[in-house]
Amino acid sequence: MSKEITSRSENYSQWYLDIVKKAGLAENSAVRGCMVIKPLGFAIWEKIHDYLDAEFKRTGHVNAYFPLLIPKSFLSREADHVEGFAKECAVVTHHRLMNAPDGNGVVVDPSARLEEELIIRPTSETIIWDTYSDWIQSYRDLPLLINQWANVLRWEMRTRPFLRTAEFLWQEGHTAHATEGEAIEEARKIHDIYADFVQDIMAIPVVKGAKSENERFAGAIDTFTIEAMMQDKKALQAGTSHFLGQNFAKAFDVKFLNEQNKEELVWATSWGVSTRLIGALIMTHSDDSGLVLPPKMAPTQVVIVPIPKPNEEILSVAEEIEHTLIEKGVSVKIDRDKKKRPGFKFAEYEMKGVPVRIGIGKRDLEKGVVEIARRDTKEKQLIPLEEVCDFIPKLLEDIQGNLFDRAVKFREDNTYYVDNWGEFEAIMKGEGGFVYAHWDGTSETENAIKEKTKATIRCIPLDQKSEPGQCILTGRASAGRVLFAKAY
Amino acid sequence: MSKEITSRSENYSQWYLDIVKKAGLAENSAVRGCMVIKPLGFAIWEKIHDYLDAEFKRTGHVNAYFPLLIPKSFLSREADHVEGFAKECAVVTHHRLMNAPDGNGVVVDPSARLEEELIIRPTSETIIWDTYSDWIQSYRDLPLLINQWANVLRWEMRTRPFLRTAEFLWQEGHTAHATEGEAIEEARKIHDIYADFVQDIMAIPVVKGAKSENERFAGAIDTFTIEAMMQDKKALQAGTSHFLGQNFAKAFDVKFLNEQNKEELVWATSWGVSTRLIGALIMTHSDDSGLVLPPKMAPTQVVIVPIPKPNEEILSVAEEIEHTLIEKGVSVKIDRDKKKRPGFKFAEYEMKGVPVRIGIGKRDLEKGVVEIARRDTKEKQLIPLEEVCDFIPKLLEDIQGNLFDRAVKFREDNTYYVDNWGEFEAIMKGEGGFVYAHWDGTSETENAIKEKTKATIRCIPLDQKSEPGQCILTGRASAGRVLFAKAY
Repeated sequence: MSKEITSRSENYSQWYLDIVKKAGLAENSAVRGCMVIKPLGFAIWEKIHDYLDAEFKRTGHVNAYFPLLIPKSFLSREADHVEGFAKECAVVTHHRLMNAPDGNGVVVDPSARLEEELIIRPTSETIIWDTYSDWIQSYRDLPLLINQWANVLRWEMRTRPFLRTAEFLWQEGHTAHATEGEAIEEARKIHDIYADFVQDIMAIPVVKGAKSENERFAGAIDTFTIEAMMQDKKALQAGTSHFLGQNFAKAFDVKFLNEQNKEELVWATSWGVSTRLIGALIMTHSDDSGLVLPPKMAPTQVVIVPIPKPNEEILSVAEEIEHTLIEKGVSVKIDRDKKKRPGFKFAEYEMKGVPVRIGIGKRDLEKGVVEIARRDTKEKQLIPLEEVCDFIPKLLEDIQGNLFDRAVKFREDNTYYVDNWGEFEAIMKGEGGFVYAHWDGTSETENAIKEKTKATIRCIPLDQKSEPGQCILTGRASAGRVLFAKAY
Repeated sequence: MSKEITSRSENYSQWYLDIVKKAGLAENSAVRGCMVIKPLGFAIWEKIHDYLDAEFKRTGHVNAYFPLLIPKSFLSREADHVEGFAKECAVVTHHRLMNAPDGNGVVVDPSARLEEELIIRPTSETIIWDTYSDWIQSYRDLPLLINQWANVLRWEMRTRPFLRTAEFLWQEGHTAHATEGEAIEEARKIHDIYADFVQDIMAIPVVKGAKSENERFAGAIDTFTIEAMMQDKKALQAGTSHFLGQNFAKAFDVKFLNEQNKEELVWATSWGVSTRLIGALIMTHSDDSGLVLPPKMAPTQVVIVPIPKPNEEILSVAEEIEHTLIEKGVSVKIDRDKKKRPGFKFAEYEMKGVPVRIGIGKRDLEKGVVEIARRDTKEKQLIPLEEVCDFIPKLLEDIQGNLFDRAVKFREDNTYYVDNWGEFEAIMKGEGGFVYAHWDGTSETENAIKEKTKATIRCIPLDQKSEPGQCILTGRASAGRVLFAKAY
């Protein structure tokens, strides 16, 4: 089965598409740029949802739901925002179809034209801040800590499943605060939640930082980001949290009476992660045999395959193992299919990234052992039956740790500290990687570097040490290194 | 606070709108017919999601996600379906905005017209069956048991929050089977899941039945429904499960090779419940003081209010109760607000339908008791401190049962078995109610009854006894009674 996948070295892009398809994660739909998220892909999204939703609630946020459609005029209320967003989006102009006069199917009813066109939300700041203007009157109404799980749509020209699609699923938090400090603290708190989740649960190491002005969200004062390195050494922005200042409060006239009974503009944040995270997950861990999932993200952590076929004795052992593992919080599936051969099943679970496979064979059983195979290293070992249920939880932890460590090592091996332009250019035009280099702090220089090398500033790392130096391109003064890379 | 609500007897419709607003469940948005679901309303939807999602998974279903947009031509593929659905919907015709030539805001870019218009899904049968045609080749691919949680949009003319809105949230299951029998069994299994959930968790009694031809889903062979009585004695269709026969398989050419290697058309079901259930919940249990929630649907089951204000001693007692109750699986909130008076808080929690309120006062504490008030009957009693944590879980069960019993009694008190037209007409033009009457089985008669009385056949009850009789309107032969009512 793994022969059906293009190898990474042969064609990295095709390798990614092959995994998405062969592992059954998603596929293109009849609508340009919109994907169908298949059951395994959606089960991974449910993991992301469940973990993050619990974290948001633990930190005092509640969920709500705002309309899919936004009046066109809302988009032009915040000037920077419209520049960054309004252009490529789906526009609803009519609200009725009618039978075609020629009897062939249906056509748009020209009499059902909307007075004002509606836009399918590309993001919801505008409709939400329009709503908040009714909800917020006094400091007692603040902070307002609201999140929404929703679909959004941006009419992208070049799409790739999960990484960039017209419609995608995400969560978008939109919070309102009485003070600047509180809003910045909120944006950073979410930034931490994202980083911890992506590292601890998805096993993807990230660099935490702030965006340069060029890469900031349309309408934001500050954008905090987490950046991960994919196996082609490009960076993927895995989540962003924005401090919006008072920009949206101004645009939608959201004021509150403070404790001194004086009117003030509200301070805002917004933040989101999307189904793009599934793309990051695939590209961080998978190999030329298919998907590799860290145990904490795997809908099925352990699969039990009877060898050569399920029979009563093998199934009773399998069910005992299943029962004990489920009690320990492990998700287990027994493959009861009698038609497919074990070799076929092995290849299938390998392709789908199930972290651990237990093979139970008649002859092994006589010796009191079962074969345990781990997906990450493909190592197999025979384990005594009575030790299996103690061994598996430790093995899952081990796999989780190994995948993270492997990804950290890969990133470290491809990270450079560079102080001269020739070397910078050579890396970016060659193998690629993360490059920490000095930058003079101007948009012009960032643009010039992008034009020459396609590399952009992924972030100004939060933990960067103060280190005076000279800009890699212009030689002008710099107070510290920033992270450059080519990006998704 | 309750004075702000119109009473049911004064104006039932306004009472409903008042509760939706004052309890903070939802509100109208800037987009006609689309509501904002506020945090309390959304928390109720999360309860519905969580319970049903677990039930679907327990019975072998998986979730997936299909595109929001549907090519216009898909809608005309299934003839009955397009008749029932395609007309009032949001049509996307363009994919780009541009800056207005006069510099004022943005306008639709006329050059970005789509070749084929796209429709925002009013339901997803068409796009899903188009996808299934790729997924299903062999009997080994069946059954396919897929559900999706999604937003859908139907351009409704007259809208009411939750009950009928342009955009709403729902789940839609779409399953494919090798045999007719299996598909019918699936449709009925889901029908049972819906009925059990709505009765056991939402405490809403329902009548289970099949729809007459007039009321069937567009494209279905059989529609199974659960019908509940609201406090205005009208019926509300709370969930439907459709046996679709081979209609969509034919329309989208979905065939499979059976075990004998012969090609056959696939059998289908679809089924859904929506945010409309929240409307049913409000209208079944609430009273003139506000929302009433059955404990199993209440995001907060118990609120603890310190009297007159939180102080260290009271809070330490409150936290001990909270801790013990949480361990018992009860959701608890302590109101720590020092600014609002207890009377104000009581009215607020009454309005929001919190099932149980514990008042902890200094003087009561000296006597070793706390005051416990239940929302359903508004009864209060003093309970010794050491008994509180045993008492509360039993009380919650009692409230859950009482609300269901109360709703059953209300329905029974307003249900009639009628055998003559004069009485039938008098009930439907008067107080209203559920009427079991004989019907000759024709659409013409059902239409005539609807025209004369506005009552429709809500369902042909599944548990109806075979009882020959004469049609209430035409006097023609009938094999059993059907359920008539005016409906939402």
